[in-house]
Amino acid sequence: MLIGEKKIERPFRWGIVGGGRTSGVGYKHRLGAMRDNTSFVLKAAAFDLDFQRCVDFGKNLCMDEDRLYPDYKAMFEAEAKREDGIEAVDIATPNFQHFEVCKAALEAGLHVICEKPLFFEIEQGEEIKRISEKTGKIVCVTYGFSGFDLLTQMRHMILSGDIGEVTMVDLRYAHGFGCDPTGDTQAEGQKWRVDPKKSGPSFVLGDLSTHTFYISELVCPQLKLKQVLCDRQSFIRSRAPLEDNAYVLMRYESGAVGRMWASAVNAGDMSSQHIRIVGTKASLEWNDMHPDELHYEVQGKPAQTLVRAMDYLSDDALEYERLGALHYTGLIDSWSNLYNRFAVAMDAKNRGDEQTRRNLVYPDLEHGIKGIRWVTKCVESADKGGVWVDFE
Amino acid sequence: MLIGEKKIERPFRWGIVGGGRTSGVGYKHRLGAMRDNTSFVLKAAAFDLDFQRCVDFGKNLCMDEDRLYPDYKAMFEAEAKREDGIEAVDIATPNFQHFEVCKAALEAGLHVICEKPLFFEIEQGEEIKRISEKTGKIVCVTYGFSGFDLLTQMRHMILSGDIGEVTMVDLRYAHGFGCDPTGDTQAEGQKWRVDPKKSGPSFVLGDLSTHTFYISELVCPQLKLKQVLCDRQSFIRSRAPLEDNAYVLMRYESGAVGRMWASAVNAGDMSSQHIRIVGTKASLEWNDMHPDELHYEVQGKPAQTLVRAMDYLSDDALEYERLGALHYTGLIDSWSNLYNRFAVAMDAKNRGDEQTRRNLVYPDLEHGIKGIRWVTKCVESADKGGVWVDFE
Amino acid sequence: MLIGEKKIERPFRWGIVGGGRTSGVGYKHRLGAMRDNTSFVLKAAAFDLDFQRCVDFGKNLCMDEDRLYPDYKAMFEAEAKREDGIEAVDIATPNFQHFEVCKAALEAGLHVICEKPLFFEIEQGEEIKRISEKTGKIVCVTYGFSGFDLLTQMRHMILSGDIGEVTMVDLRYAHGFGCDPTGDTQAEGQKWRVDPKKSGPSFVLGDLSTHTFYISELVCPQLKLKQVLCDRQSFIRSRAPLEDNAYVLMRYESGAVGRMWASAVNAGDMSSQHIRIVGTKASLEWNDMHPDELHYEVQGKPAQTLVRAMDYLSDDALEYERLGALHYTGLIDSWSNLYNRFAVAMDAKNRGDEQTRRNLVYPDLEHGIKGIRWVTKCVESADKGGVWVDFE
Amino acid sequence: MLIGEKKIERPFRWGIVGGGRTSGVGYKHRLGAMRDNTSFVLKAAAFDLDFQRCVDFGKNLCMDEDRLYPDYKAMFEAEAKREDGIEAVDIATPNFQHFEVCKAALEAGLHVICEKPLFFEIEQGEEIKRISEKTGKIVCVTYGFSGFDLLTQMRHMILSGDIGEVTMVDLRYAHGFGCDPTGDTQAEGQKWRVDPKKSGPSFVLGDLSTHTFYISELVCPQLKLKQVLCDRQSFIRSRAPLEDNAYVLMRYESGAVGRMWASAVNAGDMSSQHIRIVGTKASLEWNDMHPDELHYEVQGKPAQTLVRAMDYLSDDALEYERLGALHYTGLIDSWSNLYNRFAVAMDAKNRGDEQTRRNLVYPDLEHGIKGIRWVTKCVESADKGGVWVDFE
Repeated sequence: MLIGEKKIERPFRWGIVGGGRTSGVGYKHRLGAMRDNTSFVLKAAAFDLDFQRCVDFGKNLCMDEDRLYPDYKAMFEAEAKREDGIEAVDIATPNFQHFEVCKAALEAGLHVICEKPLFFEIEQGEEIKRISEKTGKIVCVTYGFSGFDLLTQMRHMILSGDIGEVTMVDLRYAHGFGCDPTGDTQAEGQKWRVDPKKSGPSFVLGDLSTHTFYISELVCPQLKLKQVLCDRQSFIRSRAPLEDNAYVLMRYESGAVGRMWASAVNAGDMSSQHIRIVGTKASLEWNDMHPDELHYEVQGKPAQTLVRAMDYLSDDALEYERLGALHYTGLIDSWSNLYNRFAVAMDAKNRGDEQTRRNLVYPDLEHGIKGIRWVTKCVESADKGGVWVDFE
Repeated sequence: MLIGEKKIERPFRWGIVGGGRTSGVGYKHRLGAMRDNTSFVLKAAAFDLDFQRCVDFGKNLCMDEDRLYPDYKAMFEAEAKREDGIEAVDIATPNFQHFEVCKAALEAGLHVICEKPLFFEIEQGEEIKRISEKTGKIVCVTYGFSGFDLLTQMRHMILSGDIGEVTMVDLRYAHGFGCDPTGDTQAEGQKWRVDPKKSGPSFVLGDLSTHTFYISELVCPQLKLKQVLCDRQSFIRSRAPLEDNAYVLMRYESGAVGRMWASAVNAGDMSSQHIRIVGTKASLEWNDMHPDELHYEVQGKPAQTLVRAMDYLSDDALEYERLGALHYTGLIDSWSNLYNRFAVAMDAKNRGDEQTRRNLVYPDLEHGIKGIRWVTKCVESADKGGVWVDFE
Repeated sequence: MLIGEKKIERPFRWGIVGGGRTSGVGYKHRLGAMRDNTSFVLKAAAFDLDFQRCVDFGKNLCMDEDRLYPDYKAMFEAEAKREDGIEAVDIATPNFQHFEVCKAALEAGLHVICEKPLFFEIEQGEEIKRISEKTGKIVCVTYGFSGFDLLTQMRHMILSGDIGEVTMVDLRYAHGFGCDPTGDTQAEGQKWRVDPKKSGPSFVLGDLSTHTFYISELVCPQLKLKQVLCDRQSFIRSRAPLEDNAYVLMRYESGAVGRMWASAVNAGDMSSQHIRIVGTKASLEWNDMHPDELHYEVQGKPAQTLVRAMDYLSDDALEYERLGALHYTGLIDSWSNLYNRFAVAMDAKNRGDEQTRRNLVYPDLEHGIKGIRWVTKCVESADKGGVWVDFE
Repeated sequence: MLIGEKKIERPFRWGIVGGGRTSGVGYKHRLGAMRDNTSFVLKAAAFDLDFQRCVDFGKNLCMDEDRLYPDYKAMFEAEAKREDGIEAVDIATPNFQHFEVCKAALEAGLHVICEKPLFFEIEQGEEIKRISEKTGKIVCVTYGFSGFDLLTQMRHMILSGDIGEVTMVDLRYAHGFGCDPTGDTQAEGQKWRVDPKKSGPSFVLGDLSTHTFYISELVCPQLKLKQVLCDRQSFIRSRAPLEDNAYVLMRYESGAVGRMWASAVNAGDMSSQHIRIVGTKASLEWNDMHPDELHYEVQGKPAQTLVRAMDYLSDDALEYERLGALHYTGLIDSWSNLYNRFAVAMDAKNRGDEQTRRNLVYPDLEHGIKGIRWVTKCVESADKGGVWVDFE
């Protein structure tokens, strides 16, 4: 159980690129990172392309004005000169900038936390990997839903054989907030997502399904994806070639199969992310609207609902638990758990403690690259007319 | 609202082939048909291949012993000679007998009610259609879940444009009762289902998904299916070549798309049938575990739950309502509604009242043939490796 | 498992008083009684005070016109003279007639099935009991919700100690269909319910809570009620002195306590009847909107949902099961189960087989009288200002 | 919408009494207060009776060692001497210390945030009120569940007449974690709760139901409680005279009525707090397990589920919203909202801006005193045998 006590000697000095006043996700990064003030402390930021807005915003967060910067280059340069300069940086910009900022950050000797989808191309991922290995700094990816305790429990139960052999992986991240195309031209946070130059080769596959795909890897680490088949649509025509809806079928090496439904036009849905893992004996189901409940359905037995923080959970599902039974958590608790692990991973890296880092379960650069591969292969399949393509 | 009063001059004299003591579905036919004793009365039966068991069973249902027959041929022959002979017959046998019994029944001048999937081949369906037209007798198909009042409401709302244009049809009939293969060799009701000679070219596609596919036609009559792609598996190896799990993707003429998941190995699932129809403005969702609730989700508005028997429903969704608000219904209420319509359709046919029959929404021979086509095309796609095939 | 086969030598010839075209509950009686045509067959009726409407209705049910009667007296007299006269009668009239019809029926040598609340006064119950003992005919009470299989399971688990010692009995029958008082003056089925002359000393306590109180006796037969305290209100003023809302607190001999909420003004509620039995180790919860699900919550363990028709249920919870797993039931299935037991009880009585009747769990005259006592004591407590009164 | 920006000129310097390493609630206070680092910053603490544990813990929170104190007296004295001394203090001790620490804090010129139930006696509340008025410092009460956005929405809808006139207030805070009495003697956090000297005259009435009672005041500010009747039990005998279960009936001045169920022995329940407000036209229902969903049930219309962060909510229900639609919140988000308001209230008080403070909806000293009255009157009623007692 966590109660806010430090897990590392002292919190990392930490900066942000992007994630300013008009960014919803930036606040999630700050809340996740600074929950306990013992993992990260926010010291510097280049929040915004509009420098005045950056300064206003940073001052309103009670930050030092002289550590608010017009852009990431200025920040990395100035911070590098300070004795108390930042040690880690968060990239919360639109997708198309991830690669260049990440590269620059690593080269500036910073650990990186980056938004998903990581980059546009698998090759970019490989390049960053080489740089990361060279500089000895790590890259963490904010699959922000993946820190919920019950996903840890799900992984534990699947690896323990509680559902038998996995036969099916049913994934969904499908909401309806893109039904109204007004936001495509008018909302800051939406505009760039439907612009291939800024968003990359996909809309919902990258923006949504990479989260859920990562969760499937988190809970079923033993599965290897063999082939995918994707059919994608642009129900709002102006979004073409980017899809606002996609169906994917999966085939795994083990013989297991799977499905993904990614959508921004699933009108009215408010419980967007659903994950059902079916095994030969039982199934596990979880959704992000009620993240503290895990449904365990053994064939022929009464269905069970496991609840966060209860003694019957596995030790690792309780390790990051903070609030106790009957006190339910939300998305920020998941982000906090992730950021806490990022800090531990960075600290272990700094100390050369590879064992700690290897035992730590968190979305790292490999997972980020796998996400790029996922998008790339789905788009390839769809563009060929919805045919099976090899994943690796 | 129905209260048991007759809708036709007098109930049909009715017989059954199959559906005896070891048949779960036979009881559903009897309960559906005889709920009010004003649509059908059971007069004759060839319940069982074991004649003594047939007689025992029929006597226990308080039937006349001399109208219990060793087989359908004997029944059709003897009943044809009686002045009070049966006028309609129910076919509740394993699939492989549907065709021959149906043909014989029509030729004996009987109206037919037949279990799904109707036959093995589209051509058989076409042949029965010709005979039906010749003899002036109709064929009804027991898609037994399709009589729920809220499916009528769903159809009404979709045709009224309440969800906008349909974009997606998400279908599922996936339970886990086939996880244990013991029944394949030991349970009467399961053995023939996994034997291609008796079940036809598929297991779950035919046995389960034809129900849900019909419901999609019922609620979205305006959609025309253009292409399907199916990936099917036999997770219990001994079932091959019959599948115990299948994923289908659909493309409709209108640009709408869809999915079907049919499974007998979805371990632990107890709410097997789910239907979600997504439109440009809203979605409708229904499942057969809570059939008196219909979820209406307008994007950007609070989700609504419509409940059977309430005044706010459409007139046709209230027409067959029987119990009043707060009194919830189950599967047999759906069967009763269907059988009631079958009686009205037969009566209209006998009276030459084509208008009544055309206005009546019920699963008829065309829908039965469409079900055969559905199975045939899915199997074809799967056997070609999971490729897109044209539906018509 | 039931499959419609007879449990008694031949079905009872059965008549109805009341329950005609304007009565919702009359149809439930017919559906319950005649589900299989092996327990009861409807032969005679005095459906309505309006004789022409009675005749029209009976003919529409395909009944013999000459066994449709203007009133119960005529029916009992004429039927008594027939060799094939009725053997049992159903009383589905407004409350105030229950006593006189029941008395006349017993004296005419008929078994009786009567609507709840049985009569107005405990003394009337005692008088009927004496007559019943004298004539050797039994009285059954249609607590129509009490036939669900999972209530049998609940009883079984409580008696088996699965929840420990019972500490709390939380009961509720609270809907909102009385929020609109229009029905009080305009709806046939509602008018008499708010008229003390026809309904008795209470509205919702008698009309609703007697059902739920009986279910509490069914599932917790070991508990003895010691004291009740009731606070009742007439939120629609014109209903006074009859209450449209009542809160009751209960104290049992064992130290257990309980609550009842009866209401017709619980605006918007669609799942009216909830029953939660709390024990020292676990709780069981059931509601009549989803009657095939039983929630079993062991403190410190994952909550379980038991589902009808599954092998893990007790033998008695499967004895009346009809449809098999995944096929869900509704209110009429409950009524059918009750009527089936009524037929077995009457048959056992006729055969002098007291053991069968004693082992049979069904709402009998004693339970009917207990219901009168429940209403009487609640009204007494409320009229004294909401004070504790002894139950016996 | 909040995004972490400051609402006051600079964050308050803030200290804690109690709430150390063995305290679950202490962490909630810290998380609530410091979520954005713009309302409060933690500067000093007397976490624990064990000073060494206090120091260890504080250092692990990265606090200054020389501002960790052995007790509240030392802290108030030392901090008063510092130029950068604390300006507000949090009392997270067992109940029996609330009064003396609160008094000392006010007298030391500090604003106070105190755990519920505030004190043991109404008179103590009145005394604190006088001191507070004299010193010009305010007292806030951590009814920690009351900061959820949808409770603000509920209040808004009730005050807007969306449910008509309120007729019923149905409250429940009933879990089962007290079924096992082991904690009474072994768990730090439980031991004092069942000791009348430390907990006061009640267990669950004070510890649990004061939360839910406050929420009823929050959402129905127009109601005045007139009379209560309480029946309380000690199902675990060793807890007597403190109750582990209590039923309360309420009568309001307006004619509305209500119920409360407070329990620590409601075995297996995981959704402990339920609030249903019934009006003449509709009802609103909320529970703390799914706090981002609000059920709005208009009689005769489809039930609606309102969800946090959606545009259709009232302005005040969106004012403190932080995460955007589809991103669900948990208990700490509620605490953060409260602490944010506490900071605004303290700041307004310091600036003499009475209007801002009056318009702010948060649990203040009056609400704390009302909570003491609630417990006092319930205990009085129960101890008199379960009779009606006047509330004021």
